[in-house]
Amino acid sequence: MEIKLRSPLDMHLHFRDDDMMKLVAPLSGDTFAGGVIMPNLVPPVDNLPRLLQYRERIDSALGDRQFDPYMMLFFRQYSQAELELAQKHILGIKLYPAGATTNSEAGVSEIKAVEPTFKLMEEMGIPLMVHGETHGFVMDREREFLSIYEYLARKFPKLKITMEHITTADAVQLLDRYENLRATVTLQHLIITLDDVAGGMLNPHLFCKPIAKRPEDREALLQAALEAHPKLMFGSDSAPHPLSAKECCGCAAGVFTAPLAVARLAQLFDDNGKLDNLQAFISDNAVAQYGVTPPAKEVTVTKKAFKVPAAYEGFGQTVVPMHAGEELSWAVTDIS
Amino acid sequence: MEIKLRSPLDMHLHFRDDDMMKLVAPLSGDTFAGGVIMPNLVPPVDNLPRLLQYRERIDSALGDRQFDPYMMLFFRQYSQAELELAQKHILGIKLYPAGATTNSEAGVSEIKAVEPTFKLMEEMGIPLMVHGETHGFVMDREREFLSIYEYLARKFPKLKITMEHITTADAVQLLDRYENLRATVTLQHLIITLDDVAGGMLNPHLFCKPIAKRPEDREALLQAALEAHPKLMFGSDSAPHPLSAKECCGCAAGVFTAPLAVARLAQLFDDNGKLDNLQAFISDNAVAQYGVTPPAKEVTVTKKAFKVPAAYEGFGQTVVPMHAGEELSWAVTDIS
Repeated sequence: MEIKLRSPLDMHLHFRDDDMMKLVAPLSGDTFAGGVIMPNLVPPVDNLPRLLQYRERIDSALGDRQFDPYMMLFFRQYSQAELELAQKHILGIKLYPAGATTNSEAGVSEIKAVEPTFKLMEEMGIPLMVHGETHGFVMDREREFLSIYEYLARKFPKLKITMEHITTADAVQLLDRYENLRATVTLQHLIITLDDVAGGMLNPHLFCKPIAKRPEDREALLQAALEAHPKLMFGSDSAPHPLSAKECCGCAAGVFTAPLAVARLAQLFDDNGKLDNLQAFISDNAVAQYGVTPPAKEVTVTKKAFKVPAAYEGFGQTVVPMHAGEELSWAVTDIS
Repeated sequence: MEIKLRSPLDMHLHFRDDDMMKLVAPLSGDTFAGGVIMPNLVPPVDNLPRLLQYRERIDSALGDRQFDPYMMLFFRQYSQAELELAQKHILGIKLYPAGATTNSEAGVSEIKAVEPTFKLMEEMGIPLMVHGETHGFVMDREREFLSIYEYLARKFPKLKITMEHITTADAVQLLDRYENLRATVTLQHLIITLDDVAGGMLNPHLFCKPIAKRPEDREALLQAALEAHPKLMFGSDSAPHPLSAKECCGCAAGVFTAPLAVARLAQLFDDNGKLDNLQAFISDNAVAQYGVTPPAKEVTVTKKAFKVPAAYEGFGQTVVPMHAGEELSWAVTDIS
């Protein structure tokens, strides 16, 4: 059994920079036709020159792979002139509530203070992508943020807002309540709950932000993905951290899934009898939502054993992926 | 400012065995007058000869410290003859639902199948201590187990049942509902929530079972402790794991608090204006509940800086305590 996927897209992706990017960018470029490149570097990608230089380094790391990096600016107050110059180079602007996730300390702490920029984005048709977590108790952070999504969706009805990496049943429900809300969901949040992170042994390689939630949350996310909800897009949030930052005392947040995401998603959709819906989830929904035209790339995924490497190494970097050392039942077998 | 504590007791304690015990038993023996020694070794302490041998090794590790180890049998079906032989050597019997925590795979999987032993214990006046977690979702395991406590409390009204290391507001409420239920609570569950384990960086040194819960749970536990609820006893559940088992990929569950528990509790009760209630929480309640007569030991705790060591080392073992490298504002200053 096999499926041919047209131009898989990863609508939430961390390439990092320098040697780590040299290792991980090709791993996404191999099986995806494009991806949304998150701007939370240190310093953040929050001006056009920095963005264009980052884009050059990405293109260099990708080599001749057919992969469109959809570039993002890191949210701050931007002037109309800045946005006009940047617009043709970006897919959108990413908003991090201050301090909520890796390298996002520079994010805004007060939503309302920055509404002039939302207004400009709405008028100019620039999408807003949001890491939607408050600073509350870890299991409540996303749920508490939903009212901010609702506030923004109502106040800026023409602003396209993406709820990034949603993790709760409540966020899924919100998708149908506001025309201008859409969402990405990761691979791991379709598969794991907090039980997998901290229910047995503590597993730093499944620790991410937002943290995996309850079984009923995962179930709601999975059903929405399997049904190819038109406003739900795949975004891996694949986030490489050096091995040392994962296994030292005090582990950084992020799950690295880019190189296995296509195969694992095929397995997941097949296991649930919904393989026909994978094309929409992994590409068509994003094309429709963002109007992008990714390069033509056909990825054949076949029901056959694929052993996930224990680690991906190169350029002095070592990154441990999700399912490290485990055998998947689907494999990418051809790319054309 | 200082407080003189009479015979502090740690009513839930893991000494392990061999070199690790040689390191940690004296650390408890220094500041406590007695403690309940958990029987979850490999193999478990589930017969009298093994218990007596373990007791000999404990006494040897403690040296000349004034410390009564209250010995526990690991729950299985016991005959009346076995219990009659064991009774004078034990404080109670510890029940682990199968597989719920470290080394407890040998625990019972079906409560009802072992009721003859509960009946014997009830008739003979042998207390039952329980690790009360189901195999459900990690945040629900204790709450789901409460109905089993209620079942046991009603079915065996004369059986004294201790809910070990409670972590939820619901468990606190249960204390007042059944005359024969009582509980221990750890130091860390009075202080931390899941936020401290997984809200920022992942912190393996604060990972324990039951896992730390929500802010409202911690608040209920703290208030019950500060008010010296007569059925709530201090039990550190201090659980040393070798450093390698804490910081490798896949971290074992347990927080090591024994050497700093008395000082940290004094600080906690002082911070909340309840220092006068610490004597009951750390000793008198347990004396009343179990009728034990610990050795006379007066521990003076003084409001002065105390830097917790980064690690405790010895006998080839390295154990990282809670608050490693941090400065506490209370210190044990005299023991007589």
